[in-house]
Amino acid sequence: MFEKIIEISILYDFYGQLLTAKQQEILKLYYEDNYSLSEIAEVFTISRQGVHDAVKKAEKALHEYEEKLGLVHKFTATENAISAIDRELEQLIIENIENEKLTARLRDMKDIIDKIND
Amino acid sequence: MFEKIIEISILYDFYGQLLTAKQQEILKLYYEDNYSLSEIAEVFTISRQGVHDAVKKAEKALHEYEEKLGLVHKFTATENAISAIDRELEQLIIENIENEKLTARLRDMKDIIDKIND
Repeated sequence: MFEKIIEISILYDFYGQLLTAKQQEILKLYYEDNYSLSEIAEVFTISRQGVHDAVKKAEKALHEYEEKLGLVHKFTATENAISAIDRELEQLIIENIENEKLTARLRDMKDIIDKIND
Repeated sequence: MFEKIIEISILYDFYGQLLTAKQQEILKLYYEDNYSLSEIAEVFTISRQGVHDAVKKAEKALHEYEEKLGLVHKFTATENAISAIDRELEQLIIENIENEKLTARLRDMKDIIDKIND
């Protein structure tokens, strides 16, 4: 279940703006604010089944955007690579702590990575 | 003019799959294969003005996707950061060429970056 929430959350971060305002609102209430289907049904004065269908339809749309564009996949691969470099820089800094000139340069590279993640 | 071609080309790489098949085809003929508007008009048996409008409409759609999602901007910032790190690693390898252990580690980091760009 958690895995699904994370997956939808990432897809939403990338493609959420392509959904309708109502779809965005329903997904936010459901996944971010943990509203139940019945509670969301009350907010929008539609049936519980209607909310269920809207959630499924919005999720399907997000998956279809990823199938077409693959930008989450592309971005995740890049982020994993950057994390690996970040960890290796950290390690090299520790191992070369007496070499101030070198560690300054390594720290500058780590700063560049930190700025990406801001 | 070149700048515009590059801009559309990047936007197309990211969001082209969200355009209709016909829009994709027209943009490809126009920007990749350098067909004139008249030549494209012949292919689709529509007016030259019709092709012109279709190109403008497709370009506008690509720009709107970027306005909504900003993924080209996000990606470009990351790629620039990675390029900066790549250049600095190259430099450090040259400066520390006698230190085989260190340069091996630096090269491993460069390999990770090269793999991203494959």
